[in-house]
Amino acid sequence: TGKSAAKVFAPYSIYKGKAALSADPLLPMFTKLQSGGYKVERRGSIMLTFWPAIGERKYDWDKRQKFALSATEVGSLISLGSKDSCEFFHDPSMLSSNAGQVRKSLSIKAHADGSGYFVSLSVVNNILKTNDRFVVPVTTAEFAVMRTAFTFALPHLIGWDQYTNQVPHCASKSSPTA
Amino acid sequence: TGKSAAKVFAPYSIYKGKAALSADPLLPMFTKLQSGGYKVERRGSIMLTFWPAIGERKYDWDKRQKFALSATEVGSLISLGSKDSCEFFHDPSMLSSNAGQVRKSLSIKAHADGSGYFVSLSVVNNILKTNDRFVVPVTTAEFAVMRTAFTFALPHLIGWDQYTNQVPHCASKSSPTA
Amino acid sequence: TGKSAAKVFAPYSIYKGKAALSADPLLPMFTKLQSGGYKVERRGSIMLTFWPAIGERKYDWDKRQKFALSATEVGSLISLGSKDSCEFFHDPSMLSSNAGQVRKSLSIKAHADGSGYFVSLSVVNNILKTNDRFVVPVTTAEFAVMRTAFTFALPHLIGWDQYTNQVPHCASKSSPTA
Amino acid sequence: TGKSAAKVFAPYSIYKGKAALSADPLLPMFTKLQSGGYKVERRGSIMLTFWPAIGERKYDWDKRQKFALSATEVGSLISLGSKDSCEFFHDPSMLSSNAGQVRKSLSIKAHADGSGYFVSLSVVNNILKTNDRFVVPVTTAEFAVMRTAFTFALPHLIGWDQYTNQVPHCASKSSPTA
Repeated sequence: TGKSAAKVFAPYSIYKGKAALSADPLLPMFTKLQSGGYKVERRGSIMLTFWPAIGERKYDWDKRQKFALSATEVGSLISLGSKDSCEFFHDPSMLSSNAGQVRKSLSIKAHADGSGYFVSLSVVNNILKTNDRFVVPVTTAEFAVMRTAFTFALPHLIGWDQYTNQVPHCASKSSPTA
Repeated sequence: TGKSAAKVFAPYSIYKGKAALSADPLLPMFTKLQSGGYKVERRGSIMLTFWPAIGERKYDWDKRQKFALSATEVGSLISLGSKDSCEFFHDPSMLSSNAGQVRKSLSIKAHADGSGYFVSLSVVNNILKTNDRFVVPVTTAEFAVMRTAFTFALPHLIGWDQYTNQVPHCASKSSPTA
Repeated sequence: TGKSAAKVFAPYSIYKGKAALSADPLLPMFTKLQSGGYKVERRGSIMLTFWPAIGERKYDWDKRQKFALSATEVGSLISLGSKDSCEFFHDPSMLSSNAGQVRKSLSIKAHADGSGYFVSLSVVNNILKTNDRFVVPVTTAEFAVMRTAFTFALPHLIGWDQYTNQVPHCASKSSPTA
Repeated sequence: TGKSAAKVFAPYSIYKGKAALSADPLLPMFTKLQSGGYKVERRGSIMLTFWPAIGERKYDWDKRQKFALSATEVGSLISLGSKDSCEFFHDPSMLSSNAGQVRKSLSIKAHADGSGYFVSLSVVNNILKTNDRFVVPVTTAEFAVMRTAFTFALPHLIGWDQYTNQVPHCASKSSPTA
């Protein structure tokens, strides 16, 4: 159940020598309350997708791996200084019987000269016996696009764009303060 | 009187060992003028709610305490440097006969190594003879989410999102400058 | 001619010992083109209004003076460092026969300790033989609200909020690049 | 095919002694998918237009030259420090038989004292045997307007403003995480 707007495909993609990287936002899921209001059921995220180069300007989309940045991980990324690094670990099967079988780690490492970052995804899958690793060098300019776009998206990921004065709330009587 | 849009519940919540903290925006109240326009009657705020842990991953919502950050206090918080601290004092009964009976203070203290902040709320209630204190350590990444979300919300708190060119204002004649 | 949305009154006001200061955005004026499009006829501005204190918590609105910050002056203000100062000069009768008769100057001077700014307006009116001066100390927190609200408003002042993908532009054929 | 909203003309223009410079955003082109969704077909850009002065406060629009900043070039510009410089090269006939015949370069050079930038466009056209060069000094305040407006526009250029919760997505069942 639930209505949805037309789906949009607007990934921000970066193609480099060994692999490509794209980012696009996933909006949060809301639950409609009996009162008629809406509650965030699951926060949104920024989905990062990596896929390998298999020749000059040729990339293999079938070999893609994904990493969903949470709102807090997005907060970490957009506040990264030009010399800083960070790393995130995900287990997509967490809380299931396969917990621990797949380990994903995303690392963002500043170049020593502050001219950009290496963004790497490593996926170790003990079930499929696979071990994938992607490294995409991201320039300062490309990172600025990501930072600006992620900063724009972040309030939407946590559902705060729903708090808008489209229909001004009019005062009927005063309410207590806190 | 006054119409209102569907209510939204999208708190940004942080769960830590001793207590949890959530933030959500309260929109301003408008008065409809006889001219058909709207005037901000009361500015909005960011409502912070603290509630204590009572076991592993268990929290007691009934023991919650609230602190409503004004627009100016939000301005203070979003401009806080990584080594800065600030503190705000509220009296929810200010201007009533109970003035001074309840004292709330919110403190944001940077960790010495710049890795985050301690956000603490203290509520001394001389009527109920209670004294509550909550401390939530907030990482740099979590604080970046709060800063980004609060910066997004701030123009809405003071009603400036209502100044939009949805219907472009068309010139009829020139007006004087100031 | 021209339609307009309901007028909004949402000044951000600061009351201090000697005077009060409020800021609110004035949207740009558009001309409707025969093609059906819209052109910015006159850019918007941030209107600053100063009015004097005449007793404890009493202010005289009839003695107010205004200063309209242009988009570029807003750019100057929002990029001001915590130790920086700037000053703007306006002649409201510029290009008329009264040119030079009224001189307005707005000055923003950082406190030596970086804890805020003095915002001052001086209006010398040679026609009315008046000389008004207002000084409002603005804290770092209040200035952060102004910076955030002005940064939010700036794209609206120059009409860029009208460039939105509300109705996605669909490709029919490719166009040349530049 | 494809519908479009009313066209808007809201260039941010700067007039200086030797030349004028204006900036306005070009929105991305979307393709409508059979599923009913939208896909970005071509990213938007910020179009810079330069045209020469031909007398006091007179400029020759017929001699204009254009340079379309890509999203990544906008990222570079908005992250420029007050002492930094950058330069971009475009070939408007790239991939056609005229490749290499027209060379455009845009350079942004910080003033030594950090008080602004020189923004220059050079267009060498081997077909028309022309060689145009424009230099526009841009103050810190003007650059702050451009930075703020470009930062506002960037998410629109890559189509991310289409990811909005206008109609909240309601949860039907849980989906896998990544």
